[in-house]
Amino acid sequence: FAGGVESLDYEVIENYAYREEQAQRGKFWVPYYIVLKWVFSLLIGVGTGLAAIFINLAVENFSGWKYAATFAIIQHSYFVGFVVYIIFNLVLVFSSVYIVTHFAPAAAGSGIPEIKGVDTHGILLFRTLVGKIFGSIGSVGGGLALGKEGPLVHTGACIASLLGQGGSAKYHLSSRWVRIFESDRDRRDLVTCGCAAGVAAAFRAPVGGVLFALEEVTSWWRSHLMWRVFFTSAVVAVVVRSAMNWCKSGKCGHFGSGGFIIWDISGGQEDYSYQELLPMAIIGVIGGLLGALFNQLTLYITKWRRTYLHKKGKRVKFYCSKDNEYNDLATIFFNTQDDAIRNLFSAKTFHEYSAQSLITFLVMFYSLAVVTFGTAVPAGQFVPGIMIGSTYGRLVGMFVVKFYKKLNVEEGTYALLGAASFLGGSMRMTVSLCVIMVEITNNLKLLPLIMLVLLISKAVGDFFNEGLYEVQAQLRGIPLLDSRPKQVMRNMSAKDACKNQKVVSLPRVSRIVDIISVLRTNKHNGFPVVDRGQNGESLVIGLILRSHLLVLLQSKVDFQNSPFPCGPGILNRHNTSDFVKPASSKGKSIDDIHLTEDELGLYLDLAPFLNPSPYVVPEDMSLAKVYNLFRQLGLRHIFVVPRPSRVVGLITRQDLLLED
Amino acid sequence: FAGGVESLDYEVIENYAYREEQAQRGKFWVPYYIVLKWVFSLLIGVGTGLAAIFINLAVENFSGWKYAATFAIIQHSYFVGFVVYIIFNLVLVFSSVYIVTHFAPAAAGSGIPEIKGVDTHGILLFRTLVGKIFGSIGSVGGGLALGKEGPLVHTGACIASLLGQGGSAKYHLSSRWVRIFESDRDRRDLVTCGCAAGVAAAFRAPVGGVLFALEEVTSWWRSHLMWRVFFTSAVVAVVVRSAMNWCKSGKCGHFGSGGFIIWDISGGQEDYSYQELLPMAIIGVIGGLLGALFNQLTLYITKWRRTYLHKKGKRVKFYCSKDNEYNDLATIFFNTQDDAIRNLFSAKTFHEYSAQSLITFLVMFYSLAVVTFGTAVPAGQFVPGIMIGSTYGRLVGMFVVKFYKKLNVEEGTYALLGAASFLGGSMRMTVSLCVIMVEITNNLKLLPLIMLVLLISKAVGDFFNEGLYEVQAQLRGIPLLDSRPKQVMRNMSAKDACKNQKVVSLPRVSRIVDIISVLRTNKHNGFPVVDRGQNGESLVIGLILRSHLLVLLQSKVDFQNSPFPCGPGILNRHNTSDFVKPASSKGKSIDDIHLTEDELGLYLDLAPFLNPSPYVVPEDMSLAKVYNLFRQLGLRHIFVVPRPSRVVGLITRQDLLLED
Ligand SMILES: Nc1ncnc2c1ncn2[C@@H]1O[C@H](COP(=O)(O)OP(=O)(O)OP(=O)(O)O)[C@@H](O)[C@H]1O
Ligand SMILES: Nc1ncnc2c1ncn2[C@@H]1O[C@H](COP(=O)(O)OP(=O)(O)OP(=O)(O)O)[C@@H](O)[C@H]1O
Ligand SMILES: [Mg+2]
Ligand SMILES: [Mg+2]
Repeated sequence: FAGGVESLDYEVIENYAYREEQAQRGKFWVPYYIVLKWVFSLLIGVGTGLAAIFINLAVENFSGWKYAATFAIIQHSYFVGFVVYIIFNLVLVFSSVYIVTHFAPAAAGSGIPEIKGVDTHGILLFRTLVGKIFGSIGSVGGGLALGKEGPLVHTGACIASLLGQGGSAKYHLSSRWVRIFESDRDRRDLVTCGCAAGVAAAFRAPVGGVLFALEEVTSWWRSHLMWRVFFTSAVVAVVVRSAMNWCKSGKCGHFGSGGFIIWDISGGQEDYSYQELLPMAIIGVIGGLLGALFNQLTLYITKWRRTYLHKKGKRVKFYCSKDNEYNDLATIFFNTQDDAIRNLFSAKTFHEYSAQSLITFLVMFYSLAVVTFGTAVPAGQFVPGIMIGSTYGRLVGMFVVKFYKKLNVEEGTYALLGAASFLGGSMRMTVSLCVIMVEITNNLKLLPLIMLVLLISKAVGDFFNEGLYEVQAQLRGIPLLDSRPKQVMRNMSAKDACKNQKVVSLPRVSRIVDIISVLRTNKHNGFPVVDRGQNGESLVIGLILRSHLLVLLQSKVDFQNSPFPCGPGILNRHNTSDFVKPASSKGKSIDDIHLTEDELGLYLDLAPFLNPSPYVVPEDMSLAKVYNLFRQLGLRHIFVVPRPSRVVGLITRQDLLLED
Repeated sequence: FAGGVESLDYEVIENYAYREEQAQRGKFWVPYYIVLKWVFSLLIGVGTGLAAIFINLAVENFSGWKYAATFAIIQHSYFVGFVVYIIFNLVLVFSSVYIVTHFAPAAAGSGIPEIKGVDTHGILLFRTLVGKIFGSIGSVGGGLALGKEGPLVHTGACIASLLGQGGSAKYHLSSRWVRIFESDRDRRDLVTCGCAAGVAAAFRAPVGGVLFALEEVTSWWRSHLMWRVFFTSAVVAVVVRSAMNWCKSGKCGHFGSGGFIIWDISGGQEDYSYQELLPMAIIGVIGGLLGALFNQLTLYITKWRRTYLHKKGKRVKFYCSKDNEYNDLATIFFNTQDDAIRNLFSAKTFHEYSAQSLITFLVMFYSLAVVTFGTAVPAGQFVPGIMIGSTYGRLVGMFVVKFYKKLNVEEGTYALLGAASFLGGSMRMTVSLCVIMVEITNNLKLLPLIMLVLLISKAVGDFFNEGLYEVQAQLRGIPLLDSRPKQVMRNMSAKDACKNQKVVSLPRVSRIVDIISVLRTNKHNGFPVVDRGQNGESLVIGLILRSHLLVLLQSKVDFQNSPFPCGPGILNRHNTSDFVKPASSKGKSIDDIHLTEDELGLYLDLAPFLNPSPYVVPEDMSLAKVYNLFRQLGLRHIFVVPRPSRVVGLITRQDLLLED
């Protein structure tokens, strides 16, 4: 894999320290834990809502000042005005690029592919959060062909992750009391809440946010998580709404009227006739084609850029690829994309645009969006997608108006359908996209039409390539597991999947020097631990993680002289928080460990620290089944073992229906 | 468990027949399978939509005739009119009871608890479908205090299940071409679509339907299933909408204007002040209390009824518990509950009701709903719940109007919140309920308020007891697994869960007489199969299901004389469809098998028919982890095995990222 990407591990490591801690938990631990979970969900909602408001405020106000200044100057000299306008945009975009390249490289791009199920190094740090917020203000305010929803999702995820680890340790913003979310699972749940909050904030679409998190972010879904996610989204909706009410009174400068993406077309077309289904299906096909083309073009461009610009060194890449390439282009276009979309969607306005201007706009904006894609600034793909889609949607709508003269046709509805089709064709999201489109247009009655269009465009797009986020993730070396096992896996067994593997394992009591050499000679992240049973036969007693080994090696307190298992009762030296994954997945490395010659000769009993019950599969289980197990439970390691010699017991539904 | 309840089994049984069939599949099998899946989703949507329209048409028309007749007669004599009215209702309710008791006993009640994750005998048959449709016409048309949403969900599930098994074999409505959904998983997916379709049809709430299926029906959720479920719901929406348009032209008799539950209050209150949050929270608390009380009362009543009425024999139970007990009461109340709710929710109508009449209505309807609950007729709990909730909601709203005089308060909004709070307090559904409420009122802006109320009422309710469907399911002996493992399970190991078990297993080549005696002497549904390895050590080679054993015993073709494993290549005697579970889970029983003395002495090699790779867990894995595995993958059997002696290989994310 690319450097810095690690799998998440939803498994509970039931080692000695964990069991101790479970046993010592007071009566109030569980209630405290539950309350904290909900409080955090609330805070994530509030935080993401405020971030969204801040970004919007800043963008709108920058645009406002920009226009005001330009108009004032243009009265005197057209040329000076234009130059000022360009300089203003350049400064904004340049500051965004500067923030991202010098301060928070992980804040580049959309951020959605990175949080889709693995732990990418540095993606959820405090500096990334700050970089993302200010970076997207610069890039959106500077008039680039991109939106702020992707960044908002990432912002929500960062806030959630920071809360989950109890604040940012590096900036001394952390407290012991809130550091009880120690497993990947708990933290991931919070991140899921954060992503939903981001979507909810970007589109004011709480239900869409929940479904987005469900469809795109989480691989392991439980219905009680859904409720918490929903709560967070609703909090965002309340926060944003309050802020907008407050701004209505004029206290926020240029912000207020249009701040958030929302195109209320509830007054628009209510009805459709069956003849209209044909043009709508055509919109779907166009969306699928253009969307797939978009994915393909961006793939080529990113690849090309990577090989070509790499020669000039890393830093140059961002500078020139940004400033000269786009800004002069971007300035041709109007500035607040939200307003443009609002016009494109507008109901009851026939012939507002000429076909020619729409086509020109489509071609230019499409190229611009393709080129802008994957640059160093924080960028969302939703808004450009909606712009492109609604343009050709409106074009089709105009033809429909011309041909079926007598129908009660709204061009605005077609623009909406076009937007849905393009997003469906490039992102391949389904339910969540559908609900988001309904929520932003506030018109439930269009749901079946949007669905029809989405079905078609997704099917057409799937015929050519994968979705935008998948393509992007592949490019960045992020290993995402599809929700379905591949067809070939049905005919493979678990053993086939690890045929040429020489399993690297450790004995229960290992010499320090052996452990070091094992850690140095390979990059595996988990090792089976083997012991001898009473009759001298070998027994696999568990799995030890590299990260835990590194913690043990660094603390040194568990080293012992004897090569025999340590007795019980000497093990209160660690609590679970010692083993908790640090904020960035990079964590410790073997090179950070410095041991003396003497220490290298000592022994370490691994038994108290290992995960005593990793998941196992018999060697001839089909790989498709293993895949489901892995994916469905969010695992990181599975042991492939020989057939068991006997069955100790059977567990069925009845055995799990214990009374509490 | 109660008779006739069986676990579903999402596991793919990769036995010889399955592998053969996989290998023989033509190039077009996969496309055909996918197309059929979508076609079936379409058909489920159309079918459920039509069923909903039919039920509504019938109910509305019956009510129409009833009222027309009553009014005509009442001109002459008040008493005769009343008698006619009662007789009309009695006939309807009686016919509903008759249908259910004599024809389709599984059609009684709501049906939702029965399809929540297990396979209840007879619950998804063709006769149940017919019984449910006509039964709910009778019971709703007869003016009982119940709704038609539960029955519609059940109807959708029946349609889906029938399609899944390729029609009803018993009524010769089945075709080979469509019988390719052979596993519990495929069929369950269709049932999930059906349930969503039911909710979508009942409330015209497609998104709510999807979320309902997600939250309440399925235990194993994948995002590509969501898209199919969503498609089905949207189809329902289109079908229902077309029918309503068609009916607007007056072709459907009394049907048309109000047919479906939908209270459009989008013109209602847009805004709320922070002072109003207190009364709204109070509504939430009331909802939680009344809802929990409702669950508790219905529990007692059903228990009491069961013990008391059981003495009088089974059939009497339904008759008297229905006709005399409720109808005279029910007739006091107006008939079309939808209209009543529409009035209760109505915006811009102050002081439409007096507080006194609301309280009277609340007390009476609440008692009536409690008593009606759990009777023999098909019954939904949604509409009564909405009635109760909106009544006290409106009451609170009236007080709010009185006290905060200057606020722009809508009593209708309070009625809506009351409805949400009562449903939340008794059913404990969250996201789906929220979305359903938003969709039926067509007002997205109330979402945060509904959520607040639901949060409170659910928390209050959870403090006292479990949700309505869980209580109901327990009463009926339906073993539902909670989505979370119980707290005690954390301190138990897998071995503890099956401590006193003497595992009943079979040798690879078993004598028929031994198999018969194993099947007779216990009721287990799965048996480990043990063989000897090359060195004489014992090896567990798989799991054989009781149902498969019965198929083999009945067909007899695999019996052999020699007590040694059969060679390869003689195994084309079965294809997978032989082993497919029949429509009703009852299936074959050991008493159906009749063998001669000679046959009893023969042998059977189980190896080709067993599931060679059941899921296994090591004996000291904590039960909480086992629980997650079981629940998350929808398993039926897990083997608890000793620690493995070695690790053949490790599977990590990288190993599963094969290129197709
Ligand atoms: N202890 C081990 N012995 C032998 N092979 C191993 C061992 N651990 C992992 N492998 C194999 O090495 C490869 C990479 O292993 P690694 O531990 O880096 O996991 P990964 O798939 O990269 O996921 P991650 O690093 O995110 O946990 C995989 O093919 C895996 O099967
Ligand atoms: N082969 C077996 N040997 C010993 N005990 C078994 C065996 N199979 C099941 N059991 C135990 O018997 C009990 C009931 O088993 P049964 O097979 O009826 O499953 P169940 O929980 O009722 O689920 P279902 O019948 O729906 O599959 C459980 O406690 C189970 O652990
Ligand atoms: Mg790795
Ligand atoms: Mg059983």
